[in-house]
Amino acid sequence: MYPTLDTINSPEDLKSLDIGQLEVLCKEIREYIVECCSHNPGHIGSSLGAVEIAVALHKVMDTPKDKIVWDVGHQAYAHKIITGRREQFQHNREKGGISGFPKMDESIYDAFGAGHASTSISAALGLAVADELKGIKANHIAVIGDGAMSGGLAFEGLNNAGSRKSNLLVILNDNRISIDVPGDALHRHLMRITSGASYNRIKAGIWHKLGEGRFREFLQALTHSTKKFLLHDSETVSMFDSLGFRYFGPADGNDLRQVISLLERLKRIEGPKILHLVTVKGKGYKPAEDNPAVWHAPGMFDPETGEQSRSAGGADRYQTVFGETVTALAEADSRIVGVTPAMLRGSSLDIMKDKFPERVFDVGIAEAHAVTFSAGLAAAGMLPFCNIYSSFMQRAFDNVIHDVALQHLKVVFCLDRAGLVGEDGATHQGVFDMAAFRCIPNLAIASARNESELRNLLISAASDDYPATIIRYPRGCGEGVPWRDEPVKKIIPGRAEKLREGSRIAILSIGPIGNKCARAASEAASRTGISVLHYDMRFLKPIDTDAIDDACEAASVIITAEDGAKAGGLHGAVCEYISGKGLRRRVIPVGVPDRFIDQATVGEQYAECEMGWEDILEKITEIFGN
Amino acid sequence: MYPTLDTINSPEDLKSLDIGQLEVLCKEIREYIVECCSHNPGHIGSSLGAVEIAVALHKVMDTPKDKIVWDVGHQAYAHKIITGRREQFQHNREKGGISGFPKMDESIYDAFGAGHASTSISAALGLAVADELKGIKANHIAVIGDGAMSGGLAFEGLNNAGSRKSNLLVILNDNRISIDVPGDALHRHLMRITSGASYNRIKAGIWHKLGEGRFREFLQALTHSTKKFLLHDSETVSMFDSLGFRYFGPADGNDLRQVISLLERLKRIEGPKILHLVTVKGKGYKPAEDNPAVWHAPGMFDPETGEQSRSAGGADRYQTVFGETVTALAEADSRIVGVTPAMLRGSSLDIMKDKFPERVFDVGIAEAHAVTFSAGLAAAGMLPFCNIYSSFMQRAFDNVIHDVALQHLKVVFCLDRAGLVGEDGATHQGVFDMAAFRCIPNLAIASARNESELRNLLISAASDDYPATIIRYPRGCGEGVPWRDEPVKKIIPGRAEKLREGSRIAILSIGPIGNKCARAASEAASRTGISVLHYDMRFLKPIDTDAIDDACEAASVIITAEDGAKAGGLHGAVCEYISGKGLRRRVIPVGVPDRFIDQATVGEQYAECEMGWEDILEKITEIFGN
Repeated sequence: MYPTLDTINSPEDLKSLDIGQLEVLCKEIREYIVECCSHNPGHIGSSLGAVEIAVALHKVMDTPKDKIVWDVGHQAYAHKIITGRREQFQHNREKGGISGFPKMDESIYDAFGAGHASTSISAALGLAVADELKGIKANHIAVIGDGAMSGGLAFEGLNNAGSRKSNLLVILNDNRISIDVPGDALHRHLMRITSGASYNRIKAGIWHKLGEGRFREFLQALTHSTKKFLLHDSETVSMFDSLGFRYFGPADGNDLRQVISLLERLKRIEGPKILHLVTVKGKGYKPAEDNPAVWHAPGMFDPETGEQSRSAGGADRYQTVFGETVTALAEADSRIVGVTPAMLRGSSLDIMKDKFPERVFDVGIAEAHAVTFSAGLAAAGMLPFCNIYSSFMQRAFDNVIHDVALQHLKVVFCLDRAGLVGEDGATHQGVFDMAAFRCIPNLAIASARNESELRNLLISAASDDYPATIIRYPRGCGEGVPWRDEPVKKIIPGRAEKLREGSRIAILSIGPIGNKCARAASEAASRTGISVLHYDMRFLKPIDTDAIDDACEAASVIITAEDGAKAGGLHGAVCEYISGKGLRRRVIPVGVPDRFIDQATVGEQYAECEMGWEDILEKITEIFGN
Repeated sequence: MYPTLDTINSPEDLKSLDIGQLEVLCKEIREYIVECCSHNPGHIGSSLGAVEIAVALHKVMDTPKDKIVWDVGHQAYAHKIITGRREQFQHNREKGGISGFPKMDESIYDAFGAGHASTSISAALGLAVADELKGIKANHIAVIGDGAMSGGLAFEGLNNAGSRKSNLLVILNDNRISIDVPGDALHRHLMRITSGASYNRIKAGIWHKLGEGRFREFLQALTHSTKKFLLHDSETVSMFDSLGFRYFGPADGNDLRQVISLLERLKRIEGPKILHLVTVKGKGYKPAEDNPAVWHAPGMFDPETGEQSRSAGGADRYQTVFGETVTALAEADSRIVGVTPAMLRGSSLDIMKDKFPERVFDVGIAEAHAVTFSAGLAAAGMLPFCNIYSSFMQRAFDNVIHDVALQHLKVVFCLDRAGLVGEDGATHQGVFDMAAFRCIPNLAIASARNESELRNLLISAASDDYPATIIRYPRGCGEGVPWRDEPVKKIIPGRAEKLREGSRIAILSIGPIGNKCARAASEAASRTGISVLHYDMRFLKPIDTDAIDDACEAASVIITAEDGAKAGGLHGAVCEYISGKGLRRRVIPVGVPDRFIDQATVGEQYAECEMGWEDILEKITEIFGN
């Protein structure tokens, strides 16, 4: 089925192939990615676009001695497939299979792992400097998408690298996905470059006609000055030029021959350099080329027709509850604005954007800016709802402290993808937010148990009773609660909800794990007659001490349950309160243990962390047994 | 003494002054700053450089309707003095006095507070967009230093602002302090600009000769193209130009007439624009001009001679222990490298830099990059000691998780300025690190009780027994321990040290507050005969459960003591352990309460937080009384 690909067990096997064979290989890799992802979903779009880059890099460079750092890692499927993980790719993102992102533990060819954007330049510079210090001569390559290039960390990396002589090659994989993102000046800059004359000339194939000797002349001139080489004019390259990088490009990153030719030559040039390659997201698979946004990470699909499987009916996604609710709030309150760092669709803030285009701000991949910008909006009287995935919010920890909380500014932070996230794995787990943000003064932290609670929290948080507030909720679908039909209930900040009367054992839960606790409590009652008191705490902060008092009064054993780190979050808050009072209560934590949780389904991850309803039931019966 | 300044009670009072009078005012402001700071130390250098910028802004702009955001805020003393805080400036950075940084609570003229670098553009953009949405026409100005411009957040702000039409003026206050920082390409870019022909022409005074009419022509041409206006060539402006900003400059930012003239004109130009002003750090006070690095924030000094007061003998600073120890380690182990984000002297890493210039990396104000760059170095086999002030480490929270801990990479993070920091106030308190970082797997967290312990921890952490490790220590001087003469002791990770045998009450402390606890325990014994068991826990993580067990066995009441947030840190860890065991032990926290702690001396802040030895003693005797 894949006659060429099947012979590639390591980059060594590429070395003997000629261009024609490598082009066949690229085609087969694409077909293999499409086939595998059709029944085992993944990030197909970026990876299809970067097939030639991966093949050319491993053909030209001496990996693993030369080191490739893939930014984010969405783009790295071809890299994985040709570095000895062809068969394992069938278990991409599965429990026990390979990660969907580069991972150092997994392969010596993964020089540095990723999952979050914009880290590659800093990391590759570190690798390069280390090799320099050790006297090792090698190439160090960061492959970074145009989206990730807008992150501040990428700028910090460029700015530092540009001041050194390190042998660093940054490949800007410009798949132009963000051209309709208006919040990002860099993209306009890149567009100006790629719409210029020389790029079009290159596309027209003039490139291929340049003989080897002629090219060499270009190259030699170039060691003294990058000007006029491949550039359509000096203005547009200036962004990178200003930062001390030699700019090469733009060139067609899906033209294997061209990419190989460029890399062959660039590896002989010392110092920091940037190669701007334009690629097509979804390249080679027509449905994905035609609609790259939808094919960024589709679910299962029919590889022949491109028809994507739809989840049959079922519950709304939490993000839909957010999107619709914030839009309704915005209708009633002109102070409300929406802010997202490049997750307009991912957060469903596009629902509000459609209705209030001028009041929704997609600021690009720039979480820290998203928060400080929100703080500025709040300082001038607006009420921003700033939506950031929980694990990405780790990037704005200081901004929440320094720009929002310290100044008593009111921003509602909506943390989507909180808790265990499933197939995206360790880098994307939203499990540190509660523990980390609890120490920040002037900040409320809440978590929604279901769709209705999320709506109620969002609406309540807009009222003046609330300070700056974090509202967290998980990835994916809710509990199937008919939230649109339920009456809106105003929630008092810090007020828990008693879900079940009981004695002997008390459960204090926060977030959707409360539903598993409810099931466990109910099973315990019906199976063994154990009576369990259960509160949905709703708020990590301010915490409802009345509820804890009630639990202590009723029961000698308390179970805390949260979809976050056991250390420091709800468990910590409850223990601190109980120990402060000197009560003798055993407090048993249910939550994420002190290790990183790899890719698997959410259900498998819950089982791995002993957070399923069966695990909770077992804890209850164990206690009772003792 | 200050005849002109004494008449200025608000920016309104500037409006009627002519250039000559304003120049006198600038002179008086400088004298006043020097006088006040000579006996009440502050950030004198940057503020002296920005006097004309502050006066010109308030003269030209309609503040507070027009909004000025001062980045970091070091530069804002003149701004404070002319916005109604002239007398209060005598109590700058004092308890009950005014903050050393802009602060929204303090004045309507402080449009947005700061303390950390690089936030101003994002915040000013937020203010600008809010005014747009409200239909208010106003100017929004971010004043940002050249150092702060290297932070990724500044880039994110520029990148977003450059894509919008918002009426935003970024004033780049380029005081060239960082010209000897090699880690930063942006500075070379700025140097190229300011060494160009047109800037020198401007300095030569051609500017002043430009008549009003002539200028207007320039201006009108400019609404169509910024090219050729004030620019010495198109290449050097490109960094900002690429990001959609109109670039104006460079101009002499200490030439009041020129700055006023430029601002008058720029306020009529819509859209995002950047004005590049070159200023002299320490301007007008010769000792500070001659040695800007030393005069960034000197202690007390004689205003006549410029002689700085030296603290008489006494203990070494913790940072000296770090600097000397890491240098000694580097001598023995070639894998060891030092990384700092723009705090080479502030961290004393310059000691190592002098000896191993090629193994110390000052990466500029770029904390996130500093950590990910360190991770890259570690991935290639180096052993980085990455020194970051505790409150600035908040900016690299994700990088520690995603790039270091998740990948099992070994970086030793040295967190200087941990705990309460004194006069720098709320923005700089290093009190969140323990609570926030405790939830991160594969990471050890330790805190040094004194100089010897710090040395022992630094040396121990370099050994293979340690994973990635945070070692935190406070600002300023140590306890006076003769650390150079004491033998080095290897500390086992997670091992506490028993400082005092006792019963009934146990103290578990971490960090230098342990010395206060020791004093309190000793006083308790001698005054009342109460026997107190005392452990220096040393490690927040892994925590020494044997020590906690021992404490629980000996005592029914446990006091935890830490120079960090009460919620989530040592107190949290101890309570979680005790509650998990179901022991009935009252646990009383000593630590920073759940609010931001404003400027004061460290001693006053300890008292405010009830963290002094007297407070601890009082707690002991209270418990005993009960």
